[in-house]
Amino acid sequence: MSQPTIPKGTRDFGPAQMAKRSFIFDTIKSVFQQFGFQPLETPTMENLSVLMGKYGEEGDQLLFKILNSGDFLKETDEDDFRGGSKKMASKIAEKGLRYDLTVPFARYVAMNRHTLVFPFRRYQIQPVWRADRPQKGRYREFYQCDADVVGTDSLLCEAEIVLVLNQVLGRLGIRNYAIKVNNRKILTGIAETVGAAGKEADLAVAIDKLDKIGREKVEQELAERGFPAEAIRRMEPFFAMDGEAHEQLEQLQNLFGNSQTGRQGLAELIEVLRLVEVSGLADSHLQFDVTLARGLSYYTGAIFEVKAGGVQIGSISGGGRYDNLTGAFGVPGLSGVGISFGVDRICDVMEELGFFPKKDTISTQILLVHFDAETRDYGLPLLRQLREAGINAEMYPDLAKLKKQLDYADRKGIPFVIVIGTDEMATGRLAFKNMATGQQNLRTMEEIIGQVSI
Amino acid sequence: MSQPTIPKGTRDFGPAQMAKRSFIFDTIKSVFQQFGFQPLETPTMENLSVLMGKYGEEGDQLLFKILNSGDFLKETDEDDFRGGSKKMASKIAEKGLRYDLTVPFARYVAMNRHTLVFPFRRYQIQPVWRADRPQKGRYREFYQCDADVVGTDSLLCEAEIVLVLNQVLGRLGIRNYAIKVNNRKILTGIAETVGAAGKEADLAVAIDKLDKIGREKVEQELAERGFPAEAIRRMEPFFAMDGEAHEQLEQLQNLFGNSQTGRQGLAELIEVLRLVEVSGLADSHLQFDVTLARGLSYYTGAIFEVKAGGVQIGSISGGGRYDNLTGAFGVPGLSGVGISFGVDRICDVMEELGFFPKKDTISTQILLVHFDAETRDYGLPLLRQLREAGINAEMYPDLAKLKKQLDYADRKGIPFVIVIGTDEMATGRLAFKNMATGQQNLRTMEEIIGQVSI
Repeated sequence: MSQPTIPKGTRDFGPAQMAKRSFIFDTIKSVFQQFGFQPLETPTMENLSVLMGKYGEEGDQLLFKILNSGDFLKETDEDDFRGGSKKMASKIAEKGLRYDLTVPFARYVAMNRHTLVFPFRRYQIQPVWRADRPQKGRYREFYQCDADVVGTDSLLCEAEIVLVLNQVLGRLGIRNYAIKVNNRKILTGIAETVGAAGKEADLAVAIDKLDKIGREKVEQELAERGFPAEAIRRMEPFFAMDGEAHEQLEQLQNLFGNSQTGRQGLAELIEVLRLVEVSGLADSHLQFDVTLARGLSYYTGAIFEVKAGGVQIGSISGGGRYDNLTGAFGVPGLSGVGISFGVDRICDVMEELGFFPKKDTISTQILLVHFDAETRDYGLPLLRQLREAGINAEMYPDLAKLKKQLDYADRKGIPFVIVIGTDEMATGRLAFKNMATGQQNLRTMEEIIGQVSI
Repeated sequence: MSQPTIPKGTRDFGPAQMAKRSFIFDTIKSVFQQFGFQPLETPTMENLSVLMGKYGEEGDQLLFKILNSGDFLKETDEDDFRGGSKKMASKIAEKGLRYDLTVPFARYVAMNRHTLVFPFRRYQIQPVWRADRPQKGRYREFYQCDADVVGTDSLLCEAEIVLVLNQVLGRLGIRNYAIKVNNRKILTGIAETVGAAGKEADLAVAIDKLDKIGREKVEQELAERGFPAEAIRRMEPFFAMDGEAHEQLEQLQNLFGNSQTGRQGLAELIEVLRLVEVSGLADSHLQFDVTLARGLSYYTGAIFEVKAGGVQIGSISGGGRYDNLTGAFGVPGLSGVGISFGVDRICDVMEELGFFPKKDTISTQILLVHFDAETRDYGLPLLRQLREAGINAEMYPDLAKLKKQLDYADRKGIPFVIVIGTDEMATGRLAFKNMATGQQNLRTMEEIIGQVSI
């Protein structure tokens, strides 16, 4: 057969990429655990009855569907075939690939609500799949890292999202970033205040684009979405706000007249900021952004989004408060807050800024090289000794020239080599070579273990 | 909607199961790394051109196929529809879910052979999918944990497989197990010796069932597969062998007359045993089993299989030497050795034997409880302090009765609780409660961190 390929929009992760990605995954996982979140994994396949209708019409079209196994045409007739792909799909595919981690989580909570301990804090780190058109930075298979706490209205959970974000980004070595925050109720308040009550969904969709298309086009879109000219004019002071979060929130307080919802959103945000401050974080990186709207239909309270500075890469994390996680599964009224990290984008940011630790911690630390079967045999118990001391070590398996063995160490990035010759066998002192400096010394096993274990 | 469900043969893994599974995954991963194996991850979806024809006809039928996205019927006509499911599938599905980790690994090696450093040691821990009929211990989605080294014929690699197996099982706390070993060339040798040269494939399929169906039925099957009665009779001494591995191998040496291949298989096995011994393993758990055959068409040298003692559970690990990993992808002659751990079965074994560590290391270690907003506020910097000391800690988020908060700690299995009241705020000494013993003492933060960090 000809050279094999992988499906477009998917990737292999070889040893070097895995080392980088593991560093990010391990960091996120350890912070999640530090905050009391517990792990959950759900199946790759979900029933389409669970997935369909949860992501809008566009989302439904991006679901990867799995052909029923066996004679999948058995239950179909020519009418189904002539009915087109959509009708046919409903007859021959019952399952689909997970599109995100939120719907499976909601499904899990609905199914296990009688045994779970609420407030339930779970994290989930798994790949998701979308039949999107692949492009730079957008893949058909990618990982999400989500943490949610459900079953509580406490604003402390929002504050903890801010702490989690700071902790994760700090540990990754990313220092220049902004955590943008808004509240869905503030958007509702704006709609009410300008005389367009009930139209906050349209408002949100339009102003979410302010960054990308500019004020004029947003106003144009608002007009197209049926906002009266007067309402658009009255919005101006909201978008002209400036200054620190606290200052903007004060301005907002004045702008909101009688909007009860707007005032509540404001009060929530102020309490979240206060709780973050009480926790004693030196710099919370918080920025109030009244145009932040992210998937408005889902969020009902706080909305978060994180942007890294110094790079042209979209948001690396986002989340917020929702009031009805499991409503679609017949369990209404379950409130929670969640955050999701985009590992691929974080990877891109760290790559671009050169933030990955130099040391590839997943590679072998010591290679044992030899001259013949006898010296190789001599090295086997030493190899065991190194591994038992917790050192990743390997023996070059074939009987090969020294140069070939050293070349292997070099290409694989193994930092140290032990050369076993007959002298070494006689004296028990081993030729220990630092591959970076080329320096070579005679050392006992104890000395080598002591040096490499540090 | 009614109560949601998950597809049959799939599972959710909640916090308790995740803790157990992570313990197994982490152990395997750390041993793989200790032996110099490096991580690889391949996409969940592979092109069907890569997957089909690699697992036999039965395997092809067990592949989960993914419906092409968009208008998948576009390229089909009524003839395709009338042609039945198999023909139709080839028109509407180009991708499938990974069936194992070996074919994706082979595909990766073939695609990257010019940049990889050989001998290439990789490990891969990912789920695979098979449209099998679900039953006890058999799932449609399950994890495989594979390690392979390719690009070398060295028998040291076989010996290292034995070391890896012992290291993993030892670290998991499993002590009672057998590593069964055979060599494909020995099976060939038997076929040659009894006068059925070239029929080792049939021989292997039949004798692999010796355990399950007994000698009589195996002989019957051999007859059905065209083995002459004389050949079957001449096999008897091979299956009557007894004793330690070394003793059996000596008997085999005598039984093999002129079979060059048989003698070579024997020599290989003896060298592997010798290398394991030289490495200084106290007890290798090796058992020679001349009937071991596992997927014969694939293995060409050593064959391994691990059975746990004291439980009625199939093999928990298996592997062997193959000579032509990437032949199907146009790159012939690449030899290697691999091992695969079945995590679900290992989990079952450890569960049945009660071998899981009691401590669920993924849970929260300390819960902070409070009486009102003021005491909760007071606790926030303490919470931060605990987490910065590396302790997994959480604050009960809602303002709730003490009993409710303690009940939460109890149900979630959190071992320690800090109760913050006004006394605590005044003195800085905190009520620190051990949930298991019920004992409560006044402690400073430093004392608490010192005690819990141990």
